[in-house]
Amino acid sequence: MDTSEKGCASRLAYDGKIVRVRIDHVELPNGSMTYREVVEHATAVAIAAETEDGKILLIRQFRYPVGREIIEVPAGIVEDEEDLVAAAKRELREETGFDAREIREIYRFFTSPGFSNELIVLYHAKDIFPSFLPGDDDEFINLMPTSKEECLRLIESGAIEDAKTLVALLMLLR
Amino acid sequence: MDTSEKGCASRLAYDGKIVRVRIDHVELPNGSMTYREVVEHATAVAIAAETEDGKILLIRQFRYPVGREIIEVPAGIVEDEEDLVAAAKRELREETGFDAREIREIYRFFTSPGFSNELIVLYHAKDIFPSFLPGDDDEFINLMPTSKEECLRLIESGAIEDAKTLVALLMLLR
Repeated sequence: MDTSEKGCASRLAYDGKIVRVRIDHVELPNGSMTYREVVEHATAVAIAAETEDGKILLIRQFRYPVGREIIEVPAGIVEDEEDLVAAAKRELREETGFDAREIREIYRFFTSPGFSNELIVLYHAKDIFPSFLPGDDDEFINLMPTSKEECLRLIESGAIEDAKTLVALLMLLR
Repeated sequence: MDTSEKGCASRLAYDGKIVRVRIDHVELPNGSMTYREVVEHATAVAIAAETEDGKILLIRQFRYPVGREIIEVPAGIVEDEEDLVAAAKRELREETGFDAREIREIYRFFTSPGFSNELIVLYHAKDIFPSFLPGDDDEFINLMPTSKEECLRLIESGAIEDAKTLVALLMLLR
Protein backbone atom coordinates (compact mmCIF):
# COMPACT_ATOMS: atom_id res chain seq x y z
CA MET A 1 0.00 0.00 0.00
CA ASP A 2 1.32 3.44 -0.91
CA THR A 3 1.04 5.48 2.27
CA SER A 4 2.57 8.74 1.06
CA GLU A 5 1.06 12.11 1.91
CA LYS A 6 1.29 15.17 -0.32
CA GLY A 7 1.79 18.62 1.21
CA CYS A 8 -0.43 21.28 -0.38
CA ALA A 9 -0.16 24.51 1.60
CA SER A 10 2.08 25.50 4.48
CA ARG A 11 1.88 28.14 7.18
CA LEU A 12 4.61 29.08 9.65
CA ALA A 13 2.96 29.03 13.08
CA TYR A 14 5.98 29.67 15.29
CA ASP A 15 9.53 30.78 14.48
CA GLY A 16 11.91 30.41 17.40
CA LYS A 17 15.57 30.04 18.36
CA ILE A 18 15.78 26.24 18.25
CA VAL A 19 12.50 25.18 16.64
CA ARG A 20 10.00 26.38 14.05
CA VAL A 21 6.47 25.00 13.84
CA ARG A 22 4.84 24.62 10.45
CA ILE A 23 1.25 23.65 9.77
CA ASP A 24 0.83 21.92 6.42
CA HIS A 25 -2.37 20.93 4.68
CA VAL A 26 -1.81 17.47 3.27
CA GLU A 27 -3.59 15.02 1.03
CA LEU A 28 -3.79 11.53 2.49
CA PRO A 29 -3.39 8.32 0.42
CA ASN A 30 -7.19 7.96 0.24
CA GLY A 31 -7.56 11.47 -1.19
CA SER A 32 -8.99 13.10 1.94
CA MET A 33 -7.39 16.19 3.45
CA THR A 34 -5.97 16.82 6.90
CA TYR A 35 -3.24 18.95 8.42
CA ARG A 36 0.08 18.03 9.96
CA GLU A 37 2.07 19.97 12.52
CA VAL A 38 5.79 19.80 11.88
CA VAL A 39 8.39 20.87 14.43
CA GLU A 40 11.43 21.83 12.37
CA HIS A 41 14.75 21.35 14.10
CA ALA A 42 18.28 21.49 12.67
CA THR A 43 20.24 18.28 12.11
CA ALA A 44 22.27 17.31 15.17
CA VAL A 45 25.40 15.27 15.76
CA ALA A 46 26.06 12.98 18.71
CA ILE A 47 29.42 11.48 19.64
CA ALA A 48 30.27 8.33 21.57
CA ALA A 49 33.92 9.02 22.34
CA GLU A 50 36.08 6.26 23.75
CA THR A 51 39.18 6.74 25.91
CA GLU A 52 42.32 4.64 25.51
CA ASP A 53 41.23 2.48 28.46
CA GLY A 54 37.79 1.80 26.96
CA LYS A 55 35.69 4.35 28.86
CA ILE A 56 32.90 6.27 27.14
CA LEU A 57 32.80 10.05 27.66
CA LEU A 58 29.29 10.57 29.01
CA ILE A 59 28.09 13.95 30.23
CA ARG A 60 25.48 14.97 32.76
CA GLN A 61 23.52 18.15 32.24
CA PHE A 62 20.27 19.70 33.33
CA ARG A 63 17.68 19.51 30.57
CA TYR A 64 15.10 22.18 31.20
CA PRO A 65 12.27 20.61 29.10
CA VAL A 66 12.29 17.50 31.31
CA GLY A 67 13.22 19.26 34.54
CA ARG A 68 16.20 17.20 35.56
CA GLU A 69 19.79 16.16 34.92
CA ILE A 70 20.13 13.63 32.11
CA ILE A 71 23.09 11.42 31.29
CA GLU A 72 23.94 11.73 27.60
CA VAL A 73 26.60 11.39 24.99
CA PRO A 74 27.85 14.82 23.82
CA ALA A 75 25.65 16.24 21.09
CA GLY A 76 24.61 19.45 19.47
CA ILE A 77 23.17 21.21 16.50
CA VAL A 78 25.06 21.43 13.22
CA GLU A 79 25.61 25.09 12.37
CA ASP A 80 24.77 26.61 8.98
CA GLU A 81 27.15 25.39 6.27
CA GLU A 82 29.11 23.38 8.85
CA ASP A 83 30.46 19.98 7.84
CA LEU A 84 29.00 17.12 9.94
CA VAL A 85 32.36 15.77 11.10
CA ALA A 86 33.53 19.29 11.96
CA ALA A 87 30.35 19.77 14.01
CA ALA A 88 30.92 16.46 15.83
CA LYS A 89 34.51 17.40 16.68
CA ARG A 90 33.48 20.91 17.79
CA GLU A 91 30.72 19.60 20.08
CA LEU A 92 33.08 17.00 21.53
CA ARG A 93 35.69 19.70 22.28
CA GLU A 94 33.11 22.09 23.77
CA GLU A 95 31.33 19.53 25.92
CA THR A 96 34.20 17.26 27.02
CA GLY A 97 37.45 19.14 26.32
CA PHE A 98 38.68 16.39 24.00
CA ASP A 99 39.19 16.12 20.27
CA ALA A 100 39.56 12.84 18.37
CA ARG A 101 41.99 11.70 15.69
CA GLU A 102 39.58 8.96 14.59
CA ILE A 103 35.89 9.66 14.06
CA ARG A 104 33.50 7.41 12.18
CA GLU A 105 29.77 7.73 11.49
CA ILE A 106 27.90 4.75 12.91
CA TYR A 107 24.22 5.59 12.37
CA ARG A 108 21.60 8.20 11.40
CA PHE A 109 18.14 8.33 12.91
CA PHE A 110 15.18 10.60 13.56
CA THR A 111 14.39 11.31 17.21
CA SER A 112 10.62 11.59 16.76
CA PRO A 113 9.52 11.37 13.11
CA GLY A 114 5.83 11.62 14.00
CA PHE A 115 6.08 15.34 14.72
CA SER A 116 9.65 16.51 14.12
CA ASN A 117 12.30 16.36 11.39
CA GLU A 118 15.20 16.26 13.86
CA LEU A 119 17.88 13.94 12.47
CA ILE A 120 20.80 12.77 14.59
CA VAL A 121 24.03 11.65 12.98
CA LEU A 122 25.87 9.45 15.47
CA TYR A 123 29.66 9.13 15.56
CA HIS A 124 32.12 6.83 17.28
CA ALA A 125 35.29 8.74 18.21
CA LYS A 126 38.60 7.16 19.22
CA ASP A 127 42.20 8.19 19.81
CA ILE A 128 41.12 11.25 21.76
CA PHE A 129 43.38 14.01 23.15
CA PRO A 130 42.79 17.12 25.29
CA SER A 131 41.71 20.11 23.19
CA PHE A 132 39.24 22.34 24.97
CA LEU A 133 37.03 24.77 23.09
CA PRO A 134 34.78 27.21 25.04
CA GLY A 135 31.15 26.15 24.62
CA ASP A 136 27.84 27.95 24.78
CA ASP A 137 27.68 30.20 27.84
CA ASP A 138 24.29 28.76 28.83
CA GLU A 139 25.55 25.15 29.05
CA PHE A 140 26.79 23.67 32.34
CA ILE A 141 28.14 20.18 31.91
CA ASN A 142 29.64 17.51 34.17
CA LEU A 143 32.00 15.09 32.43
CA MET A 144 31.53 11.43 33.36
CA PRO A 145 33.99 8.99 31.74
CA THR A 146 32.25 5.64 32.23
CA SER A 147 33.49 2.09 31.70
CA LYS A 148 31.46 -0.14 29.38
CA GLU A 149 30.50 -2.39 32.31
CA GLU A 150 29.17 0.65 34.17
CA CYS A 151 27.35 1.87 31.01
CA LEU A 152 25.60 -1.49 30.91
CA ARG A 153 24.67 -1.21 34.59
CA LEU A 154 23.34 2.31 34.00
CA ILE A 155 21.15 1.01 31.16
CA GLU A 156 19.93 -1.93 33.22
CA SER A 157 18.98 0.35 36.11
CA GLY A 158 17.02 2.67 33.80
CA ALA A 159 19.43 5.58 34.38
CA ILE A 160 20.02 6.30 30.67
CA GLU A 161 16.89 8.28 29.88
CA ASP A 162 17.91 9.79 26.55
CA ALA A 163 17.07 8.00 23.29
CA LYS A 164 20.23 8.92 21.33
CA THR A 165 22.42 7.84 24.26
CA LEU A 166 20.62 4.49 24.51
CA VAL A 167 21.12 3.94 20.78
CA ALA A 168 24.82 4.90 21.02
CA LEU A 169 25.57 2.71 24.03
CA LEU A 170 23.51 -0.28 22.87
CA MET A 171 25.34 -0.17 19.53
CA LEU A 172 28.79 0.06 21.12
CA LEU A 173 28.06 -2.60 23.73
CA ARG A 174 26.80 -5.20 21.26
CA MET B 1 28.51 20.88 40.04
CA ASP B 2 24.83 21.69 40.41
CA THR B 3 23.60 22.37 36.88
CA SER B 4 19.92 22.99 37.60
CA GLU B 5 17.97 25.79 35.99
CA LYS B 6 15.05 27.56 37.61
CA GLY B 7 12.05 28.61 35.54
CA CYS B 8 10.81 32.13 36.34
CA ALA B 9 8.15 33.18 33.83
CA SER B 10 6.44 31.25 31.07
CA ARG B 11 4.60 32.26 27.91
CA LEU B 12 2.62 29.96 25.60
CA ALA B 13 3.91 30.69 22.08
CA TYR B 14 1.98 28.04 20.13
CA ASP B 15 -0.91 25.79 21.08
CA GLY B 16 -1.54 23.03 18.54
CA LYS B 17 -3.07 19.60 18.07
CA ILE B 18 0.01 17.49 18.91
CA VAL B 19 2.44 20.04 20.34
CA ARG B 20 2.50 23.23 22.38
CA VAL B 21 5.50 25.54 22.47
CA ARG B 22 6.33 27.36 25.69
CA ILE B 23 9.00 30.02 26.17
CA ASP B 24 10.32 30.12 29.72
CA HIS B 25 12.67 32.63 31.26
CA VAL B 26 15.12 30.65 33.36
CA GLU B 27 17.89 31.35 35.83
CA LEU B 28 21.11 29.46 35.02
CA PRO B 29 23.37 27.88 37.69
CA ASN B 30 25.67 30.94 37.54
CA GLY B 31 22.76 33.31 38.24
CA SER B 32 22.48 34.72 34.72
CA MET B 33 19.20 34.66 32.83
CA THR B 34 18.27 33.14 29.49
CA TYR B 35 15.19 31.65 27.90
CA ARG B 36 14.36 28.10 26.91
CA GLU B 37 11.93 26.93 24.24
CA VAL B 38 10.03 23.83 25.30
CA VAL B 39 8.02 21.71 22.87
CA GLU B 40 5.38 20.04 25.02
CA HIS B 41 4.21 16.67 23.76
CA ALA B 42 2.08 14.06 25.51
CA THR B 43 3.66 10.89 26.88
CA ALA B 44 3.71 8.11 24.29
CA VAL B 45 3.83 4.33 24.42
CA ALA B 46 5.72 2.04 22.03
CA ILE B 47 5.30 -1.71 21.76
CA ALA B 48 7.69 -4.38 20.56
CA ALA B 49 5.24 -7.25 20.06
CA GLU B 50 6.56 -10.74 19.42
CA THR B 51 4.75 -13.50 17.56
CA GLU B 52 4.81 -17.14 18.66
CA ASP B 53 7.52 -17.87 16.06
CA GLY B 54 9.73 -15.02 17.31
CA LYS B 55 8.92 -12.34 14.76
CA ILE B 56 8.61 -8.69 15.79
CA LEU B 57 5.54 -6.78 14.55
CA LEU B 58 7.11 -3.82 12.77
CA ILE B 59 5.04 -1.33 10.81
CA ARG B 60 5.83 0.91 7.87
CA GLN B 61 4.15 4.27 7.60
CA PHE B 62 4.67 7.59 5.90
CA ARG B 63 5.93 10.19 8.35
CA TYR B 64 5.12 13.59 6.95
CA PRO B 65 7.71 15.57 8.99
CA VAL B 66 10.56 13.57 7.44
CA GLY B 67 8.93 13.07 4.04
CA ARG B 68 9.18 9.31 3.75
CA GLU B 69 8.07 5.90 4.96
CA ILE B 70 9.73 4.87 8.20
CA ILE B 71 9.93 1.39 9.74
CA GLU B 72 8.83 1.53 13.37
CA VAL B 73 7.42 -0.39 16.26
CA PRO B 74 3.76 0.51 16.88
CA ALA B 75 3.45 3.61 19.05
CA GLY B 76 1.12 6.42 19.92
CA ILE B 77 0.11 9.08 22.35
CA VAL B 78 -1.43 8.20 25.71
CA GLU B 79 -4.88 9.77 25.90
CA ASP B 80 -6.07 11.87 28.84
CA GLU B 81 -6.59 9.77 31.95
CA GLU B 82 -5.68 6.62 30.02
CA ASP B 83 -3.65 3.95 31.77
CA LEU B 84 -0.24 3.34 30.13
CA VAL B 85 -0.78 -0.40 29.59
CA ALA B 86 -4.26 0.25 28.21
CA ALA B 87 -2.75 2.79 25.79
CA ALA B 88 -0.09 0.29 24.70
CA LYS B 89 -2.71 -2.43 24.07
CA ARG B 90 -4.98 0.02 22.23
CA GLU B 91 -2.18 1.24 19.95
CA LEU B 92 -1.10 -2.33 19.26
CA ARG B 93 -4.66 -3.30 18.29
CA GLU B 94 -5.15 -0.20 16.13
CA GLU B 95 -1.83 -0.41 14.30
CA THR B 96 -1.32 -4.18 13.96
CA GLY B 97 -4.71 -5.82 14.63
CA PHE B 98 -3.28 -7.82 17.55
CA ASP B 99 -3.74 -7.69 21.29
CA ALA B 100 -1.37 -9.31 23.82
CA ARG B 101 -1.97 -11.43 26.90
CA GLU B 102 1.48 -10.58 28.23
CA ILE B 103 2.79 -7.02 28.23
CA ARG B 104 5.76 -5.80 30.23
CA GLU B 105 7.41 -2.37 30.47
CA ILE B 106 11.05 -2.58 29.43
CA TYR B 107 12.25 1.03 29.42
CA ARG B 108 11.34 4.74 29.60
CA PHE B 109 13.23 7.44 27.75
CA PHE B 110 12.97 10.96 26.37
CA THR B 111 13.17 11.30 22.59
CA SER B 112 14.89 14.70 22.58
CA PRO B 113 15.27 16.19 26.07
CA GLY B 114 17.12 19.26 24.77
CA PHE B 115 13.94 20.79 23.38
CA SER B 116 10.99 18.50 24.13
CA ASN B 117 9.43 16.72 27.10
CA GLU B 118 8.22 13.76 25.01
CA LEU B 119 8.60 10.60 27.09
CA ILE B 120 8.26 7.13 25.55
CA VAL B 121 7.31 4.15 27.67
CA LEU B 122 8.45 1.03 25.84
CA TYR B 123 6.71 -2.34 26.22
CA HIS B 124 7.51 -5.89 25.22
CA ALA B 125 4.33 -7.76 24.29
CA LYS B 126 4.00 -11.53 23.95
CA ASP B 127 1.28 -14.16 23.56
CA ILE B 128 -0.52 -12.06 20.95
CA PHE B 129 -3.88 -12.80 19.32
CA PRO B 130 -5.95 -11.13 16.57
CA SER B 131 -8.12 -8.31 17.96
CA PHE B 132 -8.51 -5.44 15.55
CA LEU B 133 -9.57 -1.98 16.69
CA PRO B 134 -10.21 0.77 14.11
CA GLY B 135 -7.44 3.37 14.34
CA ASP B 136 -7.18 7.03 13.48
CA ASP B 137 -8.67 7.73 10.05
CA ASP B 138 -5.54 9.66 9.01
CA GLU B 139 -3.16 6.73 9.60
CA PHE B 140 -2.21 4.32 6.81
CA ILE B 141 -0.05 1.48 8.01
CA ASN B 142 1.64 -1.57 6.46
CA LEU B 143 2.23 -4.46 8.85
CA MET B 144 5.66 -6.09 8.60
CA PRO B 145 6.22 -9.10 10.89
CA THR B 146 10.01 -9.41 10.87
CA SER B 147 12.29 -12.16 12.18
CA LYS B 148 15.00 -11.15 14.66
CA GLU B 149 17.70 -12.04 12.12
CA GLU B 150 16.04 -9.74 9.58
CA CYS B 151 15.67 -6.99 12.25
CA LEU B 152 19.42 -7.20 12.79
CA ARG B 153 20.05 -6.97 9.05
CA LEU B 154 17.74 -3.94 8.83
CA ILE B 155 19.70 -2.23 11.62
CA GLU B 156 23.03 -3.09 10.03
CA SER B 157 21.92 -1.69 6.68
CA GLY B 158 20.77 1.59 8.29
CA ALA B 159 17.11 0.93 7.43
CA ILE B 160 15.80 1.50 10.97
CA GLU B 161 15.71 5.28 11.05
CA ASP B 162 13.55 5.82 14.13
CA ALA B 163 15.17 6.21 17.55
CA LYS B 164 12.50 4.39 19.63
CA THR B 165 12.56 1.45 17.21
CA LEU B 166 16.35 1.23 17.39
CA VAL B 167 16.16 1.22 21.20
CA ALA B 168 13.41 -1.44 21.18
CA LEU B 169 15.18 -3.75 18.73
CA LEU B 170 18.66 -3.32 20.20
CA MET B 171 17.23 -4.17 23.63
CA LEU B 172 15.38 -7.25 22.39
CA LEU B 173 18.28 -8.50 20.29
CA ARG B 174 20.88 -8.29 23.07
